[in-house]
Amino acid sequence: MFDKSVYSQRRKTLVAKMAQTAPEGSRGIALFVGNAESPAQYFDNGYKFRQDSTWIYFFGIDEPRFAAIIDLDTAKETIYADDVEIDDIIWMGPQPSVKSQAASVGVENSAPYSALDADVKKAIEAGRKVHFVSASRYYNAIKLGDLLGIHPSQTFRQGKNCCPAASAELSRAIISMRLVKDASEIASIEHACDLGQQMHTIARKGIQVGVIEQQICGDMEGLAQGKGWGLSFPTILTQHGEIFHCHSHEALIAPGKLLVIDAGVEANDHYASDFTRTYPTGGKFTTQQRDIYQTVCECNELAFQMVAPGVRYVDVHKAVSKHMLSNLSQLGLVHGDVDAMVAEGIAGLFMPHGLGHNMGLDVHDMEDYGENLVGYDDDQTRSSQLGLGSLRMARTLVPGNVITDEPGIYFIPALIESWKKDGIGAQFINFEKLKEYYEFGGIRLEDDVLVTENGATRLGPNRLPITPDDVEAAMAADAENRK
Amino acid sequence: MFDKSVYSQRRKTLVAKMAQTAPEGSRGIALFVGNAESPAQYFDNGYKFRQDSTWIYFFGIDEPRFAAIIDLDTAKETIYADDVEIDDIIWMGPQPSVKSQAASVGVENSAPYSALDADVKKAIEAGRKVHFVSASRYYNAIKLGDLLGIHPSQTFRQGKNCCPAASAELSRAIISMRLVKDASEIASIEHACDLGQQMHTIARKGIQVGVIEQQICGDMEGLAQGKGWGLSFPTILTQHGEIFHCHSHEALIAPGKLLVIDAGVEANDHYASDFTRTYPTGGKFTTQQRDIYQTVCECNELAFQMVAPGVRYVDVHKAVSKHMLSNLSQLGLVHGDVDAMVAEGIAGLFMPHGLGHNMGLDVHDMEDYGENLVGYDDDQTRSSQLGLGSLRMARTLVPGNVITDEPGIYFIPALIESWKKDGIGAQFINFEKLKEYYEFGGIRLEDDVLVTENGATRLGPNRLPITPDDVEAAMAADAENRK
Repeated sequence: MFDKSVYSQRRKTLVAKMAQTAPEGSRGIALFVGNAESPAQYFDNGYKFRQDSTWIYFFGIDEPRFAAIIDLDTAKETIYADDVEIDDIIWMGPQPSVKSQAASVGVENSAPYSALDADVKKAIEAGRKVHFVSASRYYNAIKLGDLLGIHPSQTFRQGKNCCPAASAELSRAIISMRLVKDASEIASIEHACDLGQQMHTIARKGIQVGVIEQQICGDMEGLAQGKGWGLSFPTILTQHGEIFHCHSHEALIAPGKLLVIDAGVEANDHYASDFTRTYPTGGKFTTQQRDIYQTVCECNELAFQMVAPGVRYVDVHKAVSKHMLSNLSQLGLVHGDVDAMVAEGIAGLFMPHGLGHNMGLDVHDMEDYGENLVGYDDDQTRSSQLGLGSLRMARTLVPGNVITDEPGIYFIPALIESWKKDGIGAQFINFEKLKEYYEFGGIRLEDDVLVTENGATRLGPNRLPITPDDVEAAMAADAENRK
Repeated sequence: MFDKSVYSQRRKTLVAKMAQTAPEGSRGIALFVGNAESPAQYFDNGYKFRQDSTWIYFFGIDEPRFAAIIDLDTAKETIYADDVEIDDIIWMGPQPSVKSQAASVGVENSAPYSALDADVKKAIEAGRKVHFVSASRYYNAIKLGDLLGIHPSQTFRQGKNCCPAASAELSRAIISMRLVKDASEIASIEHACDLGQQMHTIARKGIQVGVIEQQICGDMEGLAQGKGWGLSFPTILTQHGEIFHCHSHEALIAPGKLLVIDAGVEANDHYASDFTRTYPTGGKFTTQQRDIYQTVCECNELAFQMVAPGVRYVDVHKAVSKHMLSNLSQLGLVHGDVDAMVAEGIAGLFMPHGLGHNMGLDVHDMEDYGENLVGYDDDQTRSSQLGLGSLRMARTLVPGNVITDEPGIYFIPALIESWKKDGIGAQFINFEKLKEYYEFGGIRLEDDVLVTENGATRLGPNRLPITPDDVEAAMAADAENRK
């Protein structure tokens, strides 16, 4: 947790921003519902508690079943939670009072959790607007729904959008704050990146033909839990890199394959890191693998070199697409005018995802507020093309943004066959040649990048080996150390 | 997953049991809702997927967003889930069809997930009863509520009870089946216990003064994730053993303390293990620690020796309480007639929890069906005494039961002070003497036990050292190996 002045200042800034959206006396209240425990097997056996990110940002307290109201007209702040009783002390030990916890983040007023219902009802009856952001958990959706007298589907995020009842004003105000990380947040993310790089290094050292993928995941999880809160998202570790969210880890490491590891650590203070590397399972790239790898590596570097204040990240995505298609053209996989291919969205066949996303307390920062609100400027319209349409961060960059730089190239047989069948990109794509890549898998290379006053810097103290030569050298050293 | 005949047979047995509860034509339908992903930071960033245990038991399929209906009058079975489309294939890879997944567990009929709504509605409109067990997750509570047109609070487990709308007939029928483990389930639990014992051994080897508790937790998690699904519940690892559910691991291992480690592994097939050991942090017990430890160790052994078919586990709890009070009497902590103390519930001051619980697919097996339904025979009434009242498993034992044997002794200053203030047990308790134990912490020792035809057997191939001498010897060997 940061000093209480940090939280007080954030809330003050929020109230000031909301003051610009409506005249005094008609601003209503902002309602914040922290997370409850999330059951795994049964109610009393929960997943490791993870606080709601919006709550962490404004109120810091890392305990379940807290809520708060900020009166946007009077700036009065109240935290709602229950003090422990003797039965709770047996099970959970003595706990600080809610009043003292509230004071520790600069909030003067506290009340029992149950008092929240009456206070929200009073506001509604007085005709005041109740502002809240989309719930990302089912508990919060039910709680918000009960407070407002509406069905949980109205308070729960939906697809790429926030929930129907969320406050766009509040969402926009918070987004404008959280997109720009301050010095203490950057230090937190740097620490998470340090842990993430340590974890990736442990993973790389575990890559050996015959080892079950699950074992490497376990070694990674051990580091993440031993030094941080845990993983910042379920690890992607697969020899089927062409499957983006492959969470099955039952396969044995096989010779001649490419192993994609996309994973990050969430530090104890809940800031995230997110890195991806791709390794030749036997320690040496084949020529086919190296050619594609080299291209992805160049794309990663190109993106980093372009990142600077004033640059639109959507343009970086496009520049990367262009470079990628240019190289693939030299390999004979596509042909024709590269600019025309970019315009047609041909890059999406090879990279059907976006170049990157915002990162902070969430690994996809604030995703449930609504992807377009978070990642797009008001004058930007999201593309409907495969790949570019999945870009989560398109905005004009400003200092303090923390984004990922994660180009990739994949050969997805089902997708290629579907384009071929539908005649998509027929004038550009050498479908016959692509058949040689049906067993290839995929490659992705990802770093975490901070936008600075003049350009950008990569986060994390020890960048993971990324050039093909450096990767092979590191794996050779690993093999030597195992002897 | 087991062979499909296992699941078919279980469902057949269930239908037969339900047939005894109502005449043909009026039995209604049984509705099963599998788990959805459970969001951690935001909707698309979920905790590691964990299927609903009831679903696993009857339908085996380990994927999110499945549901099923068994028509209890016709025995027709239908699985509801959605086949993947091209967009899903990019993100998740090719998936087997729902039809083939249903066939793999012996179910002939399948339909899209959305068809569930209409089929349940049809049953309700026909005046048929819809049987279901309590939801333990908020998603399932909302889903069941929507299907039945009721508020989620009516379908979500509450406190120690199932939800108001749950079917007692269905809950009882399933409980009668799941309480008795068959040979394949016992083999699965034995494997989970093997992993649990490996994990505890890693933990013990990591105990060194100056190490942060979190590091030991991380090492344990690494084993659990590397070889199994993960932890079967959040690890309790604390030098404040007197706090039962202490999940803070920020403390450094200090000299002269007792470290309680209560943890288990959930194997890849989701069966659980659950062990507890208590270690002197420096490798040697003090005299005060050894006296109390020896008593807990004797209680653990006494309980195991008593376990046999026909014995009521509540009586084992009481016998353990008696032995404990008898020993504490010799130490001068209590005085007077031991039987009178047991009757008065004095043991609850030292062991304010039950002796054990059922274990299987859930570490507290079926807890959300309602604790009393699961753990108490029809002719048993749950005690309201502290300790005995927390006993989760009181039933007359039968072969195939898998239970935990976990006595403990704790010195909880707030609880002792509260009894003293209220005059509880004043004629038995030496409150003055107890002050010497305010810094003691607590001790708990737990094994997993299978009730056999003639008695009982402890599960897991390598019992963790438990006598004070064996514990000290193991820790001395650990220290030697670290040199």
